[in-house]
Amino acid sequence: MNGAESLLRSLVDGGVELCITNPGTSEMHFVAALDRVPGMRAVLGLQENVVTGAADGYGRMRDQPASTLLHLGPGLANGLANLHNARRARTPIVNVIGDHATTHRHLDAPLTSDVEAVAAPFSHWVRTSMSSRAVGRDAAEAIAASRSHPGRIASLILPADTSWNEPGVPAKAIAVPEAPMPPAETIERIAARMAEGASPVMLLSGRALREGALELASAIAEATGARLLTNTFFSRLERGGDRVAIDRLPYFTEQAVDKIADATDLVLVHTAAPVGFFAYPDKPSIIADPKTCISTLAEPEEDAEGALRALADALGIRGVKPGGHGSRAELPGRPTGGLDPMTLAAAVASTLPEQAIVVDESTTGGLFLLGATASAPPHDWLSLTGGAIGMGMPVATGAALACPDRRVLNVESDGSAMYTIQSLWTQAREALDVTTVILSNGSYAILNMELARTGAAPSKEAERLFDLGHPDLDFVAMAKGMGVPGVRVEDAESLTRALEASYSVPGPQLIEAVL
Amino acid sequence: MNGAESLLRSLVDGGVELCITNPGTSEMHFVAALDRVPGMRAVLGLQENVVTGAADGYGRMRDQPASTLLHLGPGLANGLANLHNARRARTPIVNVIGDHATTHRHLDAPLTSDVEAVAAPFSHWVRTSMSSRAVGRDAAEAIAASRSHPGRIASLILPADTSWNEPGVPAKAIAVPEAPMPPAETIERIAARMAEGASPVMLLSGRALREGALELASAIAEATGARLLTNTFFSRLERGGDRVAIDRLPYFTEQAVDKIADATDLVLVHTAAPVGFFAYPDKPSIIADPKTCISTLAEPEEDAEGALRALADALGIRGVKPGGHGSRAELPGRPTGGLDPMTLAAAVASTLPEQAIVVDESTTGGLFLLGATASAPPHDWLSLTGGAIGMGMPVATGAALACPDRRVLNVESDGSAMYTIQSLWTQAREALDVTTVILSNGSYAILNMELARTGAAPSKEAERLFDLGHPDLDFVAMAKGMGVPGVRVEDAESLTRALEASYSVPGPQLIEAVL
Repeated sequence: MNGAESLLRSLVDGGVELCITNPGTSEMHFVAALDRVPGMRAVLGLQENVVTGAADGYGRMRDQPASTLLHLGPGLANGLANLHNARRARTPIVNVIGDHATTHRHLDAPLTSDVEAVAAPFSHWVRTSMSSRAVGRDAAEAIAASRSHPGRIASLILPADTSWNEPGVPAKAIAVPEAPMPPAETIERIAARMAEGASPVMLLSGRALREGALELASAIAEATGARLLTNTFFSRLERGGDRVAIDRLPYFTEQAVDKIADATDLVLVHTAAPVGFFAYPDKPSIIADPKTCISTLAEPEEDAEGALRALADALGIRGVKPGGHGSRAELPGRPTGGLDPMTLAAAVASTLPEQAIVVDESTTGGLFLLGATASAPPHDWLSLTGGAIGMGMPVATGAALACPDRRVLNVESDGSAMYTIQSLWTQAREALDVTTVILSNGSYAILNMELARTGAAPSKEAERLFDLGHPDLDFVAMAKGMGVPGVRVEDAESLTRALEASYSVPGPQLIEAVL
Repeated sequence: MNGAESLLRSLVDGGVELCITNPGTSEMHFVAALDRVPGMRAVLGLQENVVTGAADGYGRMRDQPASTLLHLGPGLANGLANLHNARRARTPIVNVIGDHATTHRHLDAPLTSDVEAVAAPFSHWVRTSMSSRAVGRDAAEAIAASRSHPGRIASLILPADTSWNEPGVPAKAIAVPEAPMPPAETIERIAARMAEGASPVMLLSGRALREGALELASAIAEATGARLLTNTFFSRLERGGDRVAIDRLPYFTEQAVDKIADATDLVLVHTAAPVGFFAYPDKPSIIADPKTCISTLAEPEEDAEGALRALADALGIRGVKPGGHGSRAELPGRPTGGLDPMTLAAAVASTLPEQAIVVDESTTGGLFLLGATASAPPHDWLSLTGGAIGMGMPVATGAALACPDRRVLNVESDGSAMYTIQSLWTQAREALDVTTVILSNGSYAILNMELARTGAAPSKEAERLFDLGHPDLDFVAMAKGMGVPGVRVEDAESLTRALEASYSVPGPQLIEAVL
């Protein structure tokens, strides 16, 4: 058995069942070994930011790592932006990055680069395997690193000769410790403050946005008068139906400041204290009022649900029951008339299938989406955690690979869509149940807002650079070019019908919604 | 004047006339300042690997840097692969990378990353401006670094507050020293060896592939019996018409070894000693025979043409005259029949316009292109210097921005095209005279060859992962989606006619050639 086969066997033994890849010459022995190792599904992406983004979507839904297989420094580089998002989402991912043979690296052949240095800024764990014998063990350690609660980016660099040389020695999976509980005194102190705080806010993110944790948080909120909020961006929120309805911190700094200005206490669960997405001249960067007492119930590495349960216990709360927490907001009816952010939101909300996975990279056009869908059937919501645009279509691809029996709805702004439009081909090849709604407003609309907010002078050049018309993008044509059927809609009824039609047939579908 | 305006004024003063960009919130003040500073053209790319690749194409044709404007670490990360190629091409580029305000960076907002660490592996020069007052001077130093002969990647990181704060202080351009000559004893020693060497080979790359340097090399070859070769991949070769015809080192290691096996001397001009593009089990990595005497006439940082002139002088060669060096190969006639690599090459060669710029990312399908076009009218040839695929369409875009009065022909393999297909939109918006020929064989054909060469077992999974069909890619539809007219051709006559038609009208055109 060569090193590549030992790597694959170690990955499968460690529970890694999916490898998303764009391989090259240095990865050939890994690719060939796929035939000999059952239990690993390989999926091709046409550009590496599709690959890493799909691994992010898969990991968010499964809480298990997929692996990527990338071609040297440049192949890795192409996928870094979505690794950045995955790192912010704390998604488990095992990157396997082929490199030149150990005997070849010092020769500075054209594709040579310092792969470890390329990986480091967006990885929690980086290692280069130096012999075929080491590969299996290194893979097991990479998997364990990626699964450290709640999830990490582990990058294993595989020189070509460690892949083709014998012997490879598969390694058994390394047990990963459970997420630790926060110290008891932390819970006691927060319980004491919350019992007394006139107006506490709990800010939740990460694993605190799963159904069980939210029920505990909701019981705590009821008992203490605390308000619950999610971070502006989060990896995955379980919502809809009977689940706890929770508001989120607004994107714009000044609105976020207002939202929690009266909080006496800010209790953080799986998130740091909120800061502005960007800095602006003469605007604050820190969201919480200086007088607010900020404390952390659970760091992202700790057990959020356990911490919330302990806090509920400390507050004397008994009988937290599942269900019955649903939003009291009425589900919007089927919209009529023109397409705008409000009718778009109503179209999505009034048709959303049970157990849908919504991947939201909707920027300005999707302003009302989250509110409108609060009373929709149970579903998951995945958002842009790291601000690197181009995550939506790949994450939707990966979520569909993770959950083949659920419909994925990707609401995607046009500018962001163009970053990773190649995702559509993988959706077509793998016959994934992804409905992509492109919000086509022909501009980087958010940047027109940001221009004013940064205090920069109005500018003709800015108008030209934020304009995506001239020529107009035709997403239906691009989808056709990649084997995905598409339709263009210009009014709310057509969008609603197109959504329903897409949900009723298997496979991917693109809807270009002209806003 | 704020920091951003001082930066722009310093760039323009330093001869930087083009800024290719995908900006975001942290770059707003730079964008707004474009209105106030004449002399800078701004061009939008829809993904950053288009931006950096276009800067590469521009720099290769102008020998002057364009600037990029990129959005924090992830925006830079998206463009790294084509910076890798540009670094290998030794193209001058000034990257301007927006970052969070200096007051905001420590807060670890979602888009935060270590931008210097992201830039470093693919830059020769990295600096973060720390105040508005420093920006102008830093920009002048970045330009000077980028123009260090023959060209470097300079990455200037611009925290948002250094951009919006006052005062900005524009800086005058810093003079860049001429490329130094190699030491006199180097020239004497090589002259002595070449005068005696039974069979010397001169391997040329970089600036040694320009018309004047090649004429000198040709005269030296005639006088000494030396053979001339280019590197397999090069930034820009001036060829065709009366210019020196020069063969190139083959891509496959064993063929390259054969090609120079009998060389007593290998004289390197603007290149390192050749090595295999990849390592393979039981194949050599070093191309030159161990008995060959290897010497460097001019390092890439030195003056290639000056060194060749000095060598000619030392060899007593007089009267090197321009012209009359053209290939004696006959230009192929207009091809008929089916499309294959041979008829493709004939179609290109028989129609190539005078002063065309050929951007070659043709991989397997373009095997005969360089040979067939040896006797075509004068033209420039740009190739994939760093092996990071997805360079062709962006480099073609940048070459057209650099040389608006010349036709750019981009011969592009289908797999590579999908990496940076977004380039088409910029070509349409800027009405660039680019003809793109997609070599559509529905596979990563090179990888099927490489699989066998690496000694990996034949593999069904490999077949599936190297296949670009299922579904087929329709490049004409994708081009339409981005505003570029396209046509699909399946025989040699149609391709020839489509090429001529594209050359006869301004603006971009895509031809999908089914191989």
